Amino acid sequence: MVKGSQSFIFDSQPVIIASATVGGPLEAEGPLSEDIDILHDDPYMGQDSFEKAEKLMIEEAAMKALEKAGVDKDEVGVFISGDLINQIIASSFAARTLGIPYLGIYGACSSSMEGLAIAASLVDGQKVKYVLTGASSHNNSAEKQYRYPNEYGAQKPPTSQWTVTGAGVCLLTFQGKGPRVIGATLGRIVDMGITDPFNMGAAMAPAAVDTIKAHFRDFGIGSDYYDLIVTGDLGAVGHKIALDKFKENGISINEKAFLDCGMMIYDRERQPQVFAGGSGCASSAVTIYGHLLNEMRKGKIKRLLAVATGALHSPLSYQQKESIPCIAHAVAIEM
Amino acid sequence: MVKGSQSFIFDSQPVIIASATVGGPLEAEGPLSEDIDILHDDPYMGQDSFEKAEKLMIEEAAMKALEKAGVDKDEVGVFISGDLINQIIASSFAARTLGIPYLGIYGACSSSMEGLAIAASLVDGQKVKYVLTGASSHNNSAEKQYRYPNEYGAQKPPTSQWTVTGAGVCLLTFQGKGPRVIGATLGRIVDMGITDPFNMGAAMAPAAVDTIKAHFRDFGIGSDYYDLIVTGDLGAVGHKIALDKFKENGISINEKAFLDCGMMIYDRERQPQVFAGGSGCASSAVTIYGHLLNEMRKGKIKRLLAVATGALHSPLSYQQKESIPCIAHAVAIEM
Repeated sequence: MVKGSQSFIFDSQPVIIASATVGGPLEAEGPLSEDIDILHDDPYMGQDSFEKAEKLMIEEAAMKALEKAGVDKDEVGVFISGDLINQIIASSFAARTLGIPYLGIYGACSSSMEGLAIAASLVDGQKVKYVLTGASSHNNSAEKQYRYPNEYGAQKPPTSQWTVTGAGVCLLTFQGKGPRVIGATLGRIVDMGITDPFNMGAAMAPAAVDTIKAHFRDFGIGSDYYDLIVTGDLGAVGHKIALDKFKENGISINEKAFLDCGMMIYDRERQPQVFAGGSGCASSAVTIYGHLLNEMRKGKIKRLLAVATGALHSPLSYQQKESIPCIAHAVAIEM
Repeated sequence: MVKGSQSFIFDSQPVIIASATVGGPLEAEGPLSEDIDILHDDPYMGQDSFEKAEKLMIEEAAMKALEKAGVDKDEVGVFISGDLINQIIASSFAARTLGIPYLGIYGACSSSMEGLAIAASLVDGQKVKYVLTGASSHNNSAEKQYRYPNEYGAQKPPTSQWTVTGAGVCLLTFQGKGPRVIGATLGRIVDMGITDPFNMGAAMAPAAVDTIKAHFRDFGIGSDYYDLIVTGDLGAVGHKIALDKFKENGISINEKAFLDCGMMIYDRERQPQVFAGGSGCASSAVTIYGHLLNEMRKGKIKRLLAVATGALHSPLSYQQKESIPCIAHAVAIEM
């Protein structure tokens, strides 16, 4: 813990003993659908609003993770969750259903790894035996709040991304089998002056690079240490910008081992409506807590650096002509 | 850490080496003004929106706390903050100015103690040397978002409360002089079915009682252990309900040592516009990080249980006919 360090080491290496994911109709047609535990074919999911559907997804993912681990919800000391809806009502109302002591967080699409970093700190510090942490987003609830309701049929530019409908939750504890949380690097705000809410990838890419650079510095490692470094939702536009920024900064990155959840969760050829790729808290939560942890459990990935990227603006800050402050939190997970 | 426990103990007893508060015009006229470091006589505070004024208050409180401690902001490992504005833009934009690694939280008016509990966990776990944590609210930014813009001049019922304009921040570290953070009890959601956003005190009182009850159970103590138990923003209506609930539950409470920040920060006789009292994240943040910590430093209070209460609804959840889920987080501070 050197001055200027942005990183923590979790000496006890908390274990992700279970994780679970939920997705919507477009995610069901995407390339990662086999790693999504519960798939819904209707965006309302039997609820009377999109916000209530989003809440349901968090509840389902949480209960599924507990079921997989064989842990009762009364044994869980803390539930940490965040989402994009004003006042994170999807998370808070899910916390009401679950009845677990609750910490609400807001890191926009970086919420998944913000939650995992806090969760691992609590387990590592022997504060609680079990922590559930997750994040969600819903295409319809996010689009109507941040841009236009989908029903308006507004045209989008090719830099725009598709908010993922889904939720991902994981359950951490002291010991057991599963991927272990080794360390975390918390992000600082990086704001390059971008104001276009249809080009979030470009806004967030510098934050991802800033955090990855800090991670390498704090841990004294390079990109070759990891089998995979994955960003949360830069999409194709932001991904390319991030690669360019690494070059500018003289940081060597293995391009084949640097991927983006927003590009993995959809097939942009078959699903052209996603334009530059997926975004939203669920982009990283579903891809990491579903597909990538499964790959780790199968032994295909041993060392993963999960970097969730968030755009911390709001419709109001946009109206007030503010640029988009961005952040990225990185969590190192090893099998 | 027994099954069912909602509490943590901080063995190393992190120290609040400095704290600072900022207030607006009504807070300047209130009984705690001498404990507020920076007072503004204009709600715009020289900014061009109320949201930017709120951001300014967090920045001022953070910088003032650092100045008091003689700590440079580059030495601070994490900044934790929350507020009421959609997507907590006051906190996130302040984090952009401060340039400190940032964790955004959302616990509505419970954010102050949610932040302090997380901050103390990080310091206790030796994750960071210095953590800054705070919360803010602004009357004009909150009223326009949750109820009506003040300029509409809408009538309010006597159960309504006045959102405090202010920010409070404290700086935690391993050692030094000052109040020490002993333990925390995280709240579960309690929802008694109240739907009236003009009666938040009544909605939140059961959550405060639930958390205080859990705190007594987990630590094996009673209300006589503390010189003062203070809630965040129950106001006069919620305070009375909480006292009734303690009686119903057979929990003995020393009424003279059970106060509410929302009733302390204003003089309801001289400032009748506040109706049942103050509310908002700043109600607890300003009262605790200002007046109460000063009382501890003077030796007037030795053991304080600070219970910040939050209503986790949103204008949208209200429109969708949902009731108000409430939460309270308690932090034990000793001198």
